[in-house]
Amino acid sequence: MSLLSLADAQQAAARVMARCDRLAEISETPDALTRVYLSPEHLQANQLVGEWMEAAGMRVWQDSVGNICGRYEALEPGAPALLLGSHLDTVRNAGRYDGMLGVLTAIETVQALQQQQRRLPLAIEIVGFGDEEGTRFGITLLGSRGLTGSWPESWVSHPDGNSITVAQAMDDVGLNAHEIGLAAREVKDIAAYLELHIEQGPCLEQEGLALGVVTAINGARRLNCCFVGEAGHAGTVPMSHRKDALAAAAEWMVFIEQAAPQHSPQLVATVGTLQALPGAVNVIPGEVKLSLDVRGPDDRALAELLSALLTQAEAIALRRGLSFSAEEYYQIPATRCDEKLQAVLSQAVAQVQGRSLSLPSGAGHDAIAIAERWPVGMLFVRCDRGISHHPAESVQAADVATAVRAYAQAVNDVATSWPSGGSLP
Amino acid sequence: MSLLSLADAQQAAARVMARCDRLAEISETPDALTRVYLSPEHLQANQLVGEWMEAAGMRVWQDSVGNICGRYEALEPGAPALLLGSHLDTVRNAGRYDGMLGVLTAIETVQALQQQQRRLPLAIEIVGFGDEEGTRFGITLLGSRGLTGSWPESWVSHPDGNSITVAQAMDDVGLNAHEIGLAAREVKDIAAYLELHIEQGPCLEQEGLALGVVTAINGARRLNCCFVGEAGHAGTVPMSHRKDALAAAAEWMVFIEQAAPQHSPQLVATVGTLQALPGAVNVIPGEVKLSLDVRGPDDRALAELLSALLTQAEAIALRRGLSFSAEEYYQIPATRCDEKLQAVLSQAVAQVQGRSLSLPSGAGHDAIAIAERWPVGMLFVRCDRGISHHPAESVQAADVATAVRAYAQAVNDVATSWPSGGSLP
Repeated sequence: MSLLSLADAQQAAARVMARCDRLAEISETPDALTRVYLSPEHLQANQLVGEWMEAAGMRVWQDSVGNICGRYEALEPGAPALLLGSHLDTVRNAGRYDGMLGVLTAIETVQALQQQQRRLPLAIEIVGFGDEEGTRFGITLLGSRGLTGSWPESWVSHPDGNSITVAQAMDDVGLNAHEIGLAAREVKDIAAYLELHIEQGPCLEQEGLALGVVTAINGARRLNCCFVGEAGHAGTVPMSHRKDALAAAAEWMVFIEQAAPQHSPQLVATVGTLQALPGAVNVIPGEVKLSLDVRGPDDRALAELLSALLTQAEAIALRRGLSFSAEEYYQIPATRCDEKLQAVLSQAVAQVQGRSLSLPSGAGHDAIAIAERWPVGMLFVRCDRGISHHPAESVQAADVATAVRAYAQAVNDVATSWPSGGSLP
Repeated sequence: MSLLSLADAQQAAARVMARCDRLAEISETPDALTRVYLSPEHLQANQLVGEWMEAAGMRVWQDSVGNICGRYEALEPGAPALLLGSHLDTVRNAGRYDGMLGVLTAIETVQALQQQQRRLPLAIEIVGFGDEEGTRFGITLLGSRGLTGSWPESWVSHPDGNSITVAQAMDDVGLNAHEIGLAAREVKDIAAYLELHIEQGPCLEQEGLALGVVTAINGARRLNCCFVGEAGHAGTVPMSHRKDALAAAAEWMVFIEQAAPQHSPQLVATVGTLQALPGAVNVIPGEVKLSLDVRGPDDRALAELLSALLTQAEAIALRRGLSFSAEEYYQIPATRCDEKLQAVLSQAVAQVQGRSLSLPSGAGHDAIAIAERWPVGMLFVRCDRGISHHPAESVQAADVATAVRAYAQAVNDVATSWPSGGSLP
């Protein structure tokens, strides 16, 4: 028996879809949804979401880094909170569900509690993070890292594309960079964090499921790689005399594609950019610059894969008389989702759709930052063809209805069974 | 016993090297040798080369398409000529030997005849072609195709980068587009064509030889190819769900590199340009555009290789659920060098350096056009690391001395043994 009836969930889903459309209108460019941190549109979105929170019976405030926050009080006022949330900022020319769907479905779970006039042992708090994507300043998770109190000092002087610093941008919208610390929450005041998000991948669609439960947010490592050989005339240099950097890169790319799934089906490795130089139809490429992006839910497995890939690149270069170099410029460890929260979510998902699916998250989420302080759990919703960060990003209202039912159930289960000062259910 | 003593050949080589340096000063840009068809520099070079021809005892004229021509009369005035030559135009930021070396060594062979006061059954004519590279108008071999009378009508209205047509450019330097036909030579007036050129490849250097004899000028085919798959998030799409266009292209490039030499050691295949789209580190490439350049001395073998490569690309695309397309935009058949001229050249080369080496030419030459009318032979001179079309293009004076000796000997052998109206020796 679910907390919401199917009819109630359908109504809630219709409201969520309409509100996603409404939020999509708040954009710095009319034809391409773009809403960045500390912009006028950010504050407009906060205003609107705050109104929706209030309508769901929550006390609402904007914190000192620009997150919009709401609290639905517990049975005993002042109890720790189960935190729900996601982000309200977007990439440029974005879709309308990435981030927003998680905030709006969270509001529906509180709305349902309010309708049933139920209070739980835990308060329910919702946060709409002001920055997850990092679109404006190139640094990410500013909203959630405000909550965890983990902003490095350097961030306030970080400039956007117009040389406006974070501090100046805060000032422009009535925030104060000296008060960033006030956004940090005490560890004891939050019991756990649950985030609902579109999958941004094709797995749920392939499985024919609306919902899945995240096991971990993949760690990622990114490298700029380079093969250097010798450019030469495409007509005059026999194949046996060549030091073709593109041929070497091709051999490596074939290896990468085969090695990643051999190490583990959950590992992915991508060469997304490749430049062959000098880049003429009649010249053998003397240099190839290419990127390597590897991700996986287990840091050790990821490190092993990366090591194997780089060893192979060196071997290919050596055998061909080329040189190979690689520079890692980005590394983020994997974030494990809490086992007990996974169990609660899986049970709620199985209840509404028959079975649950556990899957890693290939993309990053606010939960990465939150997991530094609190247990996190994530619920994924199927999206059309896995497309996101694109106007074609799409979810079905029926899936959102299913999601609201499962999410509300999971929230209820976590908050109800919360032992005072004890461990999770 | 060679026609030139070593000392004479060394003197001749020193003159050739100095004249290459002198010609390299005639450039539209002071720091990057560039001399294009129908430019003031073209006429200046013609003037200078004409003076050197005259000094070698030749009658000199500039033909109606701007080639500089000289004739060293035969024993019987009006006899057919053995034509020697190469081109005087350059690519942008060129080396100083590509083309010029062939014209200047030819002048030395006549110089030697004049010094010895020898006339041969064939006249010796030298031509410095005004355009081989096609740098200015993007159409190539304009000089040699003037001689063969095979200019298409459309060429005169072909524009350069500044919208100046060939006809206008001719007018600007005192030529007349209506007189292009006058440059065409009667088939009976020319017995054969010999061209000396730098190798532009590494084979002679690898063999430790100064000279080699060309078997054929490679045919070439160029295609624009494209794999289309599906772009996707580098973190969220499992390896098994991907339609990665770059992974498909990599598999194909590995096949190309292996298949070419398996078909024949004289075939070469090059992917010189590659664009992976959309081209972001965290996005699986959904489309890859790449060029394919295949060359070889035998058209049928080349066609078989190309067919095998395209079949494999289709198979790779099919297996991966991608699409593949290829458009051929350039095709030039192979040019066979005359067997008897090859034999004479090989004998002369063996005489001066102990042994000869037969090799195909990977690059195009004036001989391609000339071969449409007359038997052609080509002599290659070693160049440093095979570099050409670059300021670092370099030849050794000692190699040029060897080349002058062999070239003069071959010219003498062809012209001496020329049967009146008969076939080649």
